Amino acid sequence: MNPTLLEALNWRYATKKFDPTKIIPAEDLTTLLESIRLTPSSYGLQPVKILVVENPKTREEIKTMAWNQQQVVDASHLLILCHYFNPGHEEVEQYLELMSNVRNKPLASLEGFKQHLMKSLDTMGETNKEQWTSKQTYIVLGQLMLSCALMGIDATPMEGFDKQVLNQYLQLEQRGLRASLLCPIGYRHEEDPYLSLAKVRKNHEALFEVI
Amino acid sequence: MNPTLLEALNWRYATKKFDPTKIIPAEDLTTLLESIRLTPSSYGLQPVKILVVENPKTREEIKTMAWNQQQVVDASHLLILCHYFNPGHEEVEQYLELMSNVRNKPLASLEGFKQHLMKSLDTMGETNKEQWTSKQTYIVLGQLMLSCALMGIDATPMEGFDKQVLNQYLQLEQRGLRASLLCPIGYRHEEDPYLSLAKVRKNHEALFEVI
Repeated sequence: MNPTLLEALNWRYATKKFDPTKIIPAEDLTTLLESIRLTPSSYGLQPVKILVVENPKTREEIKTMAWNQQQVVDASHLLILCHYFNPGHEEVEQYLELMSNVRNKPLASLEGFKQHLMKSLDTMGETNKEQWTSKQTYIVLGQLMLSCALMGIDATPMEGFDKQVLNQYLQLEQRGLRASLLCPIGYRHEEDPYLSLAKVRKNHEALFEVI
Repeated sequence: MNPTLLEALNWRYATKKFDPTKIIPAEDLTTLLESIRLTPSSYGLQPVKILVVENPKTREEIKTMAWNQQQVVDASHLLILCHYFNPGHEEVEQYLELMSNVRNKPLASLEGFKQHLMKSLDTMGETNKEQWTSKQTYIVLGQLMLSCALMGIDATPMEGFDKQVLNQYLQLEQRGLRASLLCPIGYRHEEDPYLSLAKVRKNHEALFEVI
């Protein structure tokens, strides 16, 4: 499959019923994760972590925290997009060290950017900071869903789950993380009744305005 | 240009200097806007509006609200991704009418979904609702940036601008809208010093965890 961009987007839909017998080949999963890894983020900070849930028992338990949506267990893989809710100076230090290594530049030459970034985080306040980092998971989601579609892989984003219970179950808070989105990925079941529904989108005039 | 997914992602970068002489062909712009139009959203509600700013004078003025970032005026087009900050029953009614038309189903058969969606919005509270709708613009952004990369078009997302001033300047609030993101799109200048910088991304182990 090598669809054009618009073919891929018209092909995709929020799959309600996955075929549990179909597993994403390792090579395709690697490509998808690499696409996630390359996703742009604000300042390049990547304040996110992606859990790839394979364990069937874990997925059964997560299903109960997600309104028993069957896709959580039936899809080939379950991704949990998490954000760091309060990144600070330590995360900035690590990021700048990485940049220094990758670009072969002395840390001292990045000092201005470091101070700017630290000050930004300091003045944001915890609530705003978490809103901002959780938004970064939505960029990942946008890129992930399109990447999946281009590869003929189905993806069903889910905002509706009990975040507090899931955070506790996976002991995320202790690591500075909170779950933002679930995204089962895999292959549609040919009997999914939602498969044949026409896509509902605002028309061009309602969505765009040229000024 | 017909790159693979990962080639496209490795090719893209947050362009700091656009070539002001290069304009996105109408056909490509149409494809990009169609990609935005097809972007998935929570409940399918699409609580977003995209302004395509062509007027040079308007762009000069917006530049002053965006830390004088030159990309705002040099890029082929400037997109402003806006969200509806307080969608309510009226928006749900419109959405369900659209769904009824597109899928050729009587409105009455969609009543359950309509009530569920209205109740969701009612119980969210204004602050949470705005956070939620603004997140939808980040899905658009993720899909837009990848779509651009696949088409050999550069895109530079910007969160840093004076939102209040811009909302006022464009009289967005009166229409229930607020600006969430700026995204100049066009073509990199071959002398952009950022062009040759190696991409900085967390490694696989830091970003992913299989459980």
